[in-house]
Amino acid sequence: MAPEMTTLKGKPFSRAELDGLLRRTLFYTPSFEIYGGVAGFYDYGPPGCALNANIVDLWRKHFVIEENMLEVEGPMVTPHEILKTSGHVDRFCDWMVKDEANGDILRADHLVENVLEMRLKGDKEARGLVHVEKEEDPKKKKKKEKALANLEAKKLDDALVQEYEEVLAKIDNYDGAELGLLIEKYDIRNPATGNPVTPPTQFNLMFHIPNIGPSSSLYGFLRPETAQGQFLNFAKLLDYNNHRMPFASATIGKSFRNEISPRAGLLRVREFLMCEIEHFVDPEGGKKHARFHEVADVKLNLLDRDTQLSGKTEVSPMPIGEAVEKGIVDNETLGYFLARVQLFLIQLGCNPEKIRFRQHMATEMAHYATDCWDAELQTSYGWIECVGCADRSAYDLTVHMKRTGQPLQVRERLDEPRTVEYWAAETNKKEFGPKFRKDAPAVQGAIDALSDELREKLSVELKEAGKITLDVPNFGDGKVELTPDLITIEKRTRTENIRTYTPNVIEPSFGIGRILYALCEHVYWSREGDESRAVLSFPPSIAPMPVVLYPLSSHPDFKPLIARLSALLRKKRIHFAVDDSSASIGKRYSRRDQLGTPFHITADFESVQKNTFTLRERDSMEQVRATEQEIVDAVVNMVNGEETWEDVQARLPKFEGQAIEEGEEERKE
Amino acid sequence: MAPEMTTLKGKPFSRAELDGLLRRTLFYTPSFEIYGGVAGFYDYGPPGCALNANIVDLWRKHFVIEENMLEVEGPMVTPHEILKTSGHVDRFCDWMVKDEANGDILRADHLVENVLEMRLKGDKEARGLVHVEKEEDPKKKKKKEKALANLEAKKLDDALVQEYEEVLAKIDNYDGAELGLLIEKYDIRNPATGNPVTPPTQFNLMFHIPNIGPSSSLYGFLRPETAQGQFLNFAKLLDYNNHRMPFASATIGKSFRNEISPRAGLLRVREFLMCEIEHFVDPEGGKKHARFHEVADVKLNLLDRDTQLSGKTEVSPMPIGEAVEKGIVDNETLGYFLARVQLFLIQLGCNPEKIRFRQHMATEMAHYATDCWDAELQTSYGWIECVGCADRSAYDLTVHMKRTGQPLQVRERLDEPRTVEYWAAETNKKEFGPKFRKDAPAVQGAIDALSDELREKLSVELKEAGKITLDVPNFGDGKVELTPDLITIEKRTRTENIRTYTPNVIEPSFGIGRILYALCEHVYWSREGDESRAVLSFPPSIAPMPVVLYPLSSHPDFKPLIARLSALLRKKRIHFAVDDSSASIGKRYSRRDQLGTPFHITADFESVQKNTFTLRERDSMEQVRATEQEIVDAVVNMVNGEETWEDVQARLPKFEGQAIEEGEEERKE
Repeated sequence: MAPEMTTLKGKPFSRAELDGLLRRTLFYTPSFEIYGGVAGFYDYGPPGCALNANIVDLWRKHFVIEENMLEVEGPMVTPHEILKTSGHVDRFCDWMVKDEANGDILRADHLVENVLEMRLKGDKEARGLVHVEKEEDPKKKKKKEKALANLEAKKLDDALVQEYEEVLAKIDNYDGAELGLLIEKYDIRNPATGNPVTPPTQFNLMFHIPNIGPSSSLYGFLRPETAQGQFLNFAKLLDYNNHRMPFASATIGKSFRNEISPRAGLLRVREFLMCEIEHFVDPEGGKKHARFHEVADVKLNLLDRDTQLSGKTEVSPMPIGEAVEKGIVDNETLGYFLARVQLFLIQLGCNPEKIRFRQHMATEMAHYATDCWDAELQTSYGWIECVGCADRSAYDLTVHMKRTGQPLQVRERLDEPRTVEYWAAETNKKEFGPKFRKDAPAVQGAIDALSDELREKLSVELKEAGKITLDVPNFGDGKVELTPDLITIEKRTRTENIRTYTPNVIEPSFGIGRILYALCEHVYWSREGDESRAVLSFPPSIAPMPVVLYPLSSHPDFKPLIARLSALLRKKRIHFAVDDSSASIGKRYSRRDQLGTPFHITADFESVQKNTFTLRERDSMEQVRATEQEIVDAVVNMVNGEETWEDVQARLPKFEGQAIEEGEEERKE
Repeated sequence: MAPEMTTLKGKPFSRAELDGLLRRTLFYTPSFEIYGGVAGFYDYGPPGCALNANIVDLWRKHFVIEENMLEVEGPMVTPHEILKTSGHVDRFCDWMVKDEANGDILRADHLVENVLEMRLKGDKEARGLVHVEKEEDPKKKKKKEKALANLEAKKLDDALVQEYEEVLAKIDNYDGAELGLLIEKYDIRNPATGNPVTPPTQFNLMFHIPNIGPSSSLYGFLRPETAQGQFLNFAKLLDYNNHRMPFASATIGKSFRNEISPRAGLLRVREFLMCEIEHFVDPEGGKKHARFHEVADVKLNLLDRDTQLSGKTEVSPMPIGEAVEKGIVDNETLGYFLARVQLFLIQLGCNPEKIRFRQHMATEMAHYATDCWDAELQTSYGWIECVGCADRSAYDLTVHMKRTGQPLQVRERLDEPRTVEYWAAETNKKEFGPKFRKDAPAVQGAIDALSDELREKLSVELKEAGKITLDVPNFGDGKVELTPDLITIEKRTRTENIRTYTPNVIEPSFGIGRILYALCEHVYWSREGDESRAVLSFPPSIAPMPVVLYPLSSHPDFKPLIARLSALLRKKRIHFAVDDSSASIGKRYSRRDQLGTPFHITADFESVQKNTFTLRERDSMEQVRATEQEIVDAVVNMVNGEETWEDVQARLPKFEGQAIEEGEEERKE
């Protein structure tokens, strides 16, 4: 996928090292571990929680507050009927296979993908092109070895290599039957055992809730997305918004996928935080966006459908304005959100070169979508979908309206009344009543239910054949013949003052856990010459703990200084910690670099005498020295994005007198 | 309960009016309403989400950041084994009864409570003491009438009144059998039908998850509390905290209760946001708290166990320092949190007179608790538990350690080694081995497993009876006789450098939805002389939308002014809205008063000429007039709690020139 991954500073990237760091420092840790753990569930520890909260906080400011979106929050437990209507009960499924011997359950597409990838790797090794990478995790080693045993270093036909590569490029697009054919054709077996597997069967990915309340008459699921809760509130939100269009709703909350076999750490979990926007827009008028001009010049890496079909993945940045103009991105509203998503990801600290937008292939889209672009972040797992931007059309509002009979529509008063042509079907009361008697209302109902299109067709038939036949359930043989003496069908016009329509929905949907993990990969590096000293270069406003205070030693003179600094920072609502452990100051800095803290304030003996403190910046390791108030103001400004470290360095005196990096201060003290 | 409820301004409180307001303005709304709704589930709309976010934000600052608590966040889906160990599978239950005729399911304690309360009400009416309150909600009217039909205006014996009152005072303390007896004794029937009900049976309140993953071998529940996830991480968190004690963990997240029959709006729901703290403390040394002196003077309304037993509910404020000294509150750590909880509630805007702390009765406590105080907020539903502060002792860590074999303990290096007495049981190898041969290890194992207490007893028995008998499973008849030639049991001493102990846990647990609702009741009032003009007086830092900008009219000159103000506020991260609707300025102010907005900035014609704006404060309706920058600075200071409205009024010129309250400005224009 991306074996040439490098860190922020261009060095080779080691996933095992980053993963070890993130687990050791409790960014995340497997859930229920003392009970043996359950795949697909992770806990966030203190730095993970703080990072997550900062990402969500920025999201709320960047989207909800900036655009006055209408935030809603609803339950995760969702009754069956709603998810039946939305299509999730029937279609939110993956394909699974069983190991025929030991009953192991595997996800069918993952199985095909894994085995073909391993065979291709074996082929490359046999051709002497690569050396098969060693697995660092000793726990996984045995399984992996077994898997590789069947497959390793075997050269394949050139034609087969090409076939495998084509299959892999389209791996997300196969249905169960197609996956079954691939498994048969390429003799794909469970790599852990070498056993054959059963044909793929469907598995619904929603967690089932058998009882809501004490009786079993009401049951449901844990929601697979937050979107449905927003659609159900559409009429209330439209009312709240004084019936103005367009508007957007937004939800921040957990959703659930009962994955068949979770893998890839935080990237595929069973419970995850989503931030979803549903932007409701008039389907007429080209889905313009009033603020599109503000982002028209933002350049995006766009990987469109045609490029993918041609087997290419290279992209070059294109302004979103140009992309919409050329029809690569369908409309301004979708384009506006793609640009806003990119601005958000960059503000978080994602590497712009590792962001791209990939258009879904027609076969790959969710059942409701008419167009879809994923914001993908490049990681050691490949390009990972982190934000889906789908045009869900009027699908959801339409199905819920149909099911409930509630008007999930916009009624728009027209500035000028408009004339609408329509096909009127009128019965001749004098003949019609006596002919059908008690069945007259049923026949009338069938006539009323005819669509405009059908009426036009029938008018021709009535004229040409002299009769038409309608379906009328519960009437004789279910058919009724009507002749021109009974019915007239003709084109008429009427004047409308109000236009009624079902809005379309543009949905940017964010997987926060994926973004969080990809961000960690993007900002991770290690010190030149001392690769064990890892650094996470989060931007100051995103870093889990932006400031740490250090007394140089446990000397009691430092206590009141640290207390005063603490009070000042608390007043400014800056999240900080005090590290008064007995480790050397260099070791303490190093430990906090690993957690991504950008600013380090130290009280030393000069602080006691002159009330000045050193301020160290994480990435450059450079320091300034200034008074308590100057240091706190500088930090507050940098955390709030009002000054940069360069600004601060330019106005506060540089500090070099005391070398207090690791290993240095021991000599000094 | 509290029929004499009054609003913030001392007027009679109408729940129906407040509830109507909160639903109309989308603070909250029943979930899934277009599908008929499901009891116990609510959605928050835009003001509810913003209020909720502000409450959680303050909570995080007041507790997590202020005290450097270790935040953790884990899944809601929880495997069975964990909740079996914690006791929830067996004991997290309510008692339910069924209507014998129509099968309606009712919660047993609520049934008894409702019926006895209605009878007491009927008695009071019969005695001419009260007039039975009318039900405002027409939907509920029919049911209510039916219910009252059986019961209304019937005088009861004085002795029976007293019995009923005693039962109601202890209603939370009855188990299923006792509730069954009460139902029989007082002939309590389903008030909706008049039918008798079945004896109470147990119903587990956890939502069941039958499958985690595709096989049915792993199943679980939705968590009933966030606490267990924190306990499971204890060893990792202790390590993260450099093995220092005490420390606290905290979780903000949803929990679930599959209520039998939810009622009382947001107060009893099936899915709710909790903020829970688990403060781990050494059980030795009296559970002192290092910062207790900071809160010792905080006065609390304490309703202790003895006062409740004497049937009283009056409380007078007592400093928490005094309460701990007198032993009313057990220890400093518990006392510290009670005081901090009260400070939090007051900062939110709760009325201090409507806050009390009630100690749990022994029979009422959760299965794990050794002492418990609830912070209760007074509402129209009575005094409602909003924060539970329990001392869970070492219960949870002990059961999880026992079940998993993982050391959930603290190992503390002792400053001075200490001498510990213990009972040593030593076998005489020469005799023991030959006698038991291959079973020797099993017998030795049984000896090793003996507790210190048991060894002391056995040493006496060995001396007096000349033999002891041990249980050894899988050995002959399971019994082994040992004589003094085979075993010696005697008291010895050893020196320890390390002390190992299981921490106790003090748990303040916040129900955010309950606090949110109670807060709305506390800050609700209406304008003197115009009771339809409701106001929600949230503090500026808590109000859902602290600032609204108004162009006086749709005149284009106002647009750039509003845009400039918007940019300034956005830069300062203040949540604001623009209300440019065509309603009169007075009507627009009024509408925002209802949503609790404290500050209203208006651009009028003087703004165009002189760049000055009016700033109106919600509660006083007074205004000042100043420049753009002065107005924005004042608002930022007030929202961040650095200035009060009085401060601002004292330094900026009062504005009276233009009366723009509702109905006034029409004359001016």
